[in-house]
Amino acid sequence: MIPPAVILSHTQMGENVGSAARAMKNFGLTDLRLIAPKMEWPNDRAQMLASGAGDILERTRIHGDAKAALADCQLVLATTARGRDVTREVLTAQAAAQRLRQASEAGVKTAILFGGERAGLDNDEISLCDALITIPTAPLPRTKDTELKASSLNLGQAVLLMGYEWLKSADTTPAVRIRERIAVPASRKELVELFEHLEKELDAAAFFFPAEKRGAMVRNIRAMILRSGLTDQQARTIRGMIVALVRNKYRGQT
Amino acid sequence: MIPPAVILSHTQMGENVGSAARAMKNFGLTDLRLIAPKMEWPNDRAQMLASGAGDILERTRIHGDAKAALADCQLVLATTARGRDVTREVLTAQAAAQRLRQASEAGVKTAILFGGERAGLDNDEISLCDALITIPTAPLPRTKDTELKASSLNLGQAVLLMGYEWLKSADTTPAVRIRERIAVPASRKELVELFEHLEKELDAAAFFFPAEKRGAMVRNIRAMILRSGLTDQQARTIRGMIVALVRNKYRGQT
Repeated sequence: MIPPAVILSHTQMGENVGSAARAMKNFGLTDLRLIAPKMEWPNDRAQMLASGAGDILERTRIHGDAKAALADCQLVLATTARGRDVTREVLTAQAAAQRLRQASEAGVKTAILFGGERAGLDNDEISLCDALITIPTAPLPRTKDTELKASSLNLGQAVLLMGYEWLKSADTTPAVRIRERIAVPASRKELVELFEHLEKELDAAAFFFPAEKRGAMVRNIRAMILRSGLTDQQARTIRGMIVALVRNKYRGQT
Repeated sequence: MIPPAVILSHTQMGENVGSAARAMKNFGLTDLRLIAPKMEWPNDRAQMLASGAGDILERTRIHGDAKAALADCQLVLATTARGRDVTREVLTAQAAAQRLRQASEAGVKTAILFGGERAGLDNDEISLCDALITIPTAPLPRTKDTELKASSLNLGQAVLLMGYEWLKSADTTPAVRIRERIAVPASRKELVELFEHLEKELDAAAFFFPAEKRGAMVRNIRAMILRSGLTDQQARTIRGMIVALVRNKYRGQT
């Protein structure tokens, strides 16, 4: 399975190529290509920002135009913030990553095309792409100055988010899990022992008052403990705390 | 609904605070807080990187420790790359964003806590948080030098991804949609007219050969056209192209 190529068109700032390379490394992408970069290459600022992804910069290929850069690609998705006059399928970043993943796993050579900092992709470049990707951003108050800035991420950010979605598209991490040394939820037996231990000591301490409220108060305390989802170790720790507190109380009274 | 606060602990580099602010702006977050920053404040590098999110930096509050910074927060999730010895719920970034969204919509004041560049969050800070967030990154070859760098995103990247997931958690954009001027898929009638027009001209041009293959060839061509999901406008455009090509052919023959 070959991951998608990341293709940057008419990039102006080495910093952005560097942070794109770093983001690629973070998310398992390796094939970086530049179309007609508007900066020196190799580029010192790119090296500096790549921080640990220098190998990606070393293998980066430079192409004169999109036609050359995309020549071997069979599925190409283009990120773009702006509306176009052409009829075009538009995918969310997540849906795009899933489509790229599916194609890559079927042996298809895929690529994600990113436009330059200022002008984005031109219509000729977009005409070579299968579909567009838009990444949602927050609507900002519209002013003459901020309109473009507001709606678009910078290049490094856009590459980062696509890399993230690419990795996520194969990620099987459960949405919620427990990280712990002894990851065993307490059994009902352990919880009942804890309940009864606690209630016995609270009875001895005349905590339940008035007596007719005892039933409701016990149910409240049990619900509170159940809701905290204790492990067996935690249930034992709480019983240890009860023992210590009771011992201390008697000591104070002597 | 109040979006989550972004709380950065012991940040060393103004650049990271600036790019965090910029990322927050992109995704609709506004409440930035710093715990004991290890740099000058206000910070020139932060200003420079914030690019359009200067208002967030102006309103940023500085706190001496996590206890103070989190005082008003009711649900706090902490990003961390490293394993901890405590029993702890761990959420994916997406699940964390959904939980934050749900709580915020119920009027709960929420926050996301990020550790410093070098050391991350310490155990005391984590003990104030409800759950941990881990963001998946690509496994890299382990070496003494790169181990830490490989597994962790930089601070600006981590804030960006959490902001992205926050916005996405309320985003109702369909995964796939068509962007176009006249967004009407061609009707069967229009497609059948196109089929028959094309087939008539291909018959006239003696395209179908040998004759017994005509049926299969026609079915192939129809499937190819259907698969391209034409709009009504595109169907008309293709019929126009057929007319032009036929006209040109006859012209060439005279």
